[in-house]
Amino acid sequence: MPELFQVVTVAEANARLRAHIAPLSHRELIPLHDALDRVLAEELRSPVDLPAFPRSTVDGFAVRAADTYGASESLPAYLTICGETPMGRAPKFTVGPGQAALIHTGGMLPSGSDSVVMVEYTQYLDPTAIEVVRPVAVGENVIPVGEDVARGDVLFPRGHRLRPQDLGGLAGVGIVQVPVVARPRVAILATGDEVVPADAEVAPGQVRDINSYTIAALVRRAGGEPVLCGIAPDDPAILDRMARSALESADLLVLSAGSSVSTRDYTVSIIESLGAPGVLVHGVAIHPGKPTIIAAAGKRPVFGLPGNPVSAIIAFGLFVAPALRHLQGAPETDPLTVQAVLTLNIASKPGREDFVPVRLERRDGVLYANPVFGKSNLIYTLVHADGLVRVPLDLSGLYAGSPVEVTLF
Amino acid sequence: MPELFQVVTVAEANARLRAHIAPLSHRELIPLHDALDRVLAEELRSPVDLPAFPRSTVDGFAVRAADTYGASESLPAYLTICGETPMGRAPKFTVGPGQAALIHTGGMLPSGSDSVVMVEYTQYLDPTAIEVVRPVAVGENVIPVGEDVARGDVLFPRGHRLRPQDLGGLAGVGIVQVPVVARPRVAILATGDEVVPADAEVAPGQVRDINSYTIAALVRRAGGEPVLCGIAPDDPAILDRMARSALESADLLVLSAGSSVSTRDYTVSIIESLGAPGVLVHGVAIHPGKPTIIAAAGKRPVFGLPGNPVSAIIAFGLFVAPALRHLQGAPETDPLTVQAVLTLNIASKPGREDFVPVRLERRDGVLYANPVFGKSNLIYTLVHADGLVRVPLDLSGLYAGSPVEVTLF
Repeated sequence: MPELFQVVTVAEANARLRAHIAPLSHRELIPLHDALDRVLAEELRSPVDLPAFPRSTVDGFAVRAADTYGASESLPAYLTICGETPMGRAPKFTVGPGQAALIHTGGMLPSGSDSVVMVEYTQYLDPTAIEVVRPVAVGENVIPVGEDVARGDVLFPRGHRLRPQDLGGLAGVGIVQVPVVARPRVAILATGDEVVPADAEVAPGQVRDINSYTIAALVRRAGGEPVLCGIAPDDPAILDRMARSALESADLLVLSAGSSVSTRDYTVSIIESLGAPGVLVHGVAIHPGKPTIIAAAGKRPVFGLPGNPVSAIIAFGLFVAPALRHLQGAPETDPLTVQAVLTLNIASKPGREDFVPVRLERRDGVLYANPVFGKSNLIYTLVHADGLVRVPLDLSGLYAGSPVEVTLF
Repeated sequence: MPELFQVVTVAEANARLRAHIAPLSHRELIPLHDALDRVLAEELRSPVDLPAFPRSTVDGFAVRAADTYGASESLPAYLTICGETPMGRAPKFTVGPGQAALIHTGGMLPSGSDSVVMVEYTQYLDPTAIEVVRPVAVGENVIPVGEDVARGDVLFPRGHRLRPQDLGGLAGVGIVQVPVVARPRVAILATGDEVVPADAEVAPGQVRDINSYTIAALVRRAGGEPVLCGIAPDDPAILDRMARSALESADLLVLSAGSSVSTRDYTVSIIESLGAPGVLVHGVAIHPGKPTIIAAAGKRPVFGLPGNPVSAIIAFGLFVAPALRHLQGAPETDPLTVQAVLTLNIASKPGREDFVPVRLERRDGVLYANPVFGKSNLIYTLVHADGLVRVPLDLSGLYAGSPVEVTLF
């Protein structure tokens, strides 16, 4: 039972798929309060100036700067108080030469004034007059109109994923309905005669479906909507029917592939039959995860992930998550990594990228990566790990004491 | 209008609050599929052995290892085929001396067998017999019962936040309903005569409510359930009534405090009146964010966050997020940081921690942190940043070219 793998690199595998898929066009308009982590369907520009009026950044007195030039402790400037700026309303008075108006942080500058003297540098002479002991420049302690954002400025590009501060930024300019990309629907189909639902009683020889749960959670993290399509037995006709039905209403299909060679063989032909261009990659230069299948049925990506949980998670991160980002029109991002010091030697074979689960530990301010060795069939290998260390293609291993980049789960 | 701040360090501020609050006892039992990022309300142990039977990790033949000892290309071992193990069922036959059974990856070892020879090291002589050209040891290519997890093993401690692989690990042992800590309810009350809802028309002098959106999103990220309680005017009686009502059904209260000194003064007395022990910290040695108020009403944390958006986000990350983790019984975690090279000098004052927003940029494989200078009143300062660089308490700044840790948003 020989296998004909044409093993390709991670970059080549992603490039082949990328040539066949494109960002989805479905979009929806949702309330700003629900938009955290959603991806913008279009570039947004500011409809207004923020702030819309000159605002004081301090508590103090709005003045004409020229009236304070040369002021000092020994030779203060004397100004008469012409009013107090109300919060939340436009002052109805004007600050004339030799005048000052009490103002609070965030208050609107009265007309005539061009700067604010901090309260710390003033002193009341009587309820109607102050002395100022330091000069201010025009614009000092003031946010001018549009300094935060000007009307017409680009706020965010299409494809931007919204963070907490971004929601604040949109609220600030009054955008409370946001056009976002609809979450890609990801059909997940487990396969294998031995696989039963997680809530079933298991008989000898049966195992519970682990990967549907793991993959569904990874889909959510990547911005997709998981659609669980059950467990197909090792019967090509039934698998074929279930795969077709799963793909029908989905934007992307993940087959959690049967683990034996014969199952993989007919998985390939079933994926081929879902539509052109079919299988693009069968075998990637990674370990674990080598027997990953990457395909497209029309513009819809189809993945055959290895059945064992560790390989499935690694292959998801390398191939499925980037495809999901691309379907959402989000830019490619570097995976989030932290630097740590490896505590044990890791052996690898040149010509493939090895991924080794590690547990992070901080001692005396230094972050250490402790390899968690375990068969890739064991889900608890990953449960006990905080991230993955990658051994590059051209190395035969990494030595204890080396600095490594750890991609976090 | 002098202020009497008793400024304390971040660690001291958190320690003072920690002395008064405790993990919440409300919990709920939820379906495993909804448990991503939820926090376990109790320690979980495995009800079963995983796997429950010895499983093959390869395609090949289940054998008695002793029958292969000494086998080689030139002197193979000859074994007769006594059956094929079905997937998903217990084999009904026994492997006797001199016998071998066809087995697939994930299949259950038949009784009598103790190891699996990979198919690559076998050859059919005829449909009833094979030769084996390499010996195997007892247990080779087999996952024994309970190797992944043994019955009674601790799977996760109380307070663990569930990741994708953890859901898989629970599915694997048949735990499909998970006891999690109820999300802490976080009441958010904005204040200020000048603040109007984000969807309102703004008149001159008014600004839209930015912080309720930002804080609600940060609460979600920290595992809490935001409850928006509106905007209180700068009227002590109304603010007092609204704060009391907000706290009534909440586990934690965040006041997005008015920005002027006088507002802060009565905010303090209103917080004091919510219940003992009252205000624990008023003023923290950070910039921006110094006027943060930290209090407790009974066991419920109460925060007065500075009104400007940048200070509010920084203070949230330093104080509110850790309090939310503590309420959920989750362990303290280091904030997630990446290492980068600072591109510009940053000035700071010794005696306070400075936080400077930075934009990250990768050039030739090196990550650079470009400071985004901007007034802390400007929300788009943060929108344009990817994270924060901290200048420690005892430094007067950081030089361009220094390695820095960037806490990501």
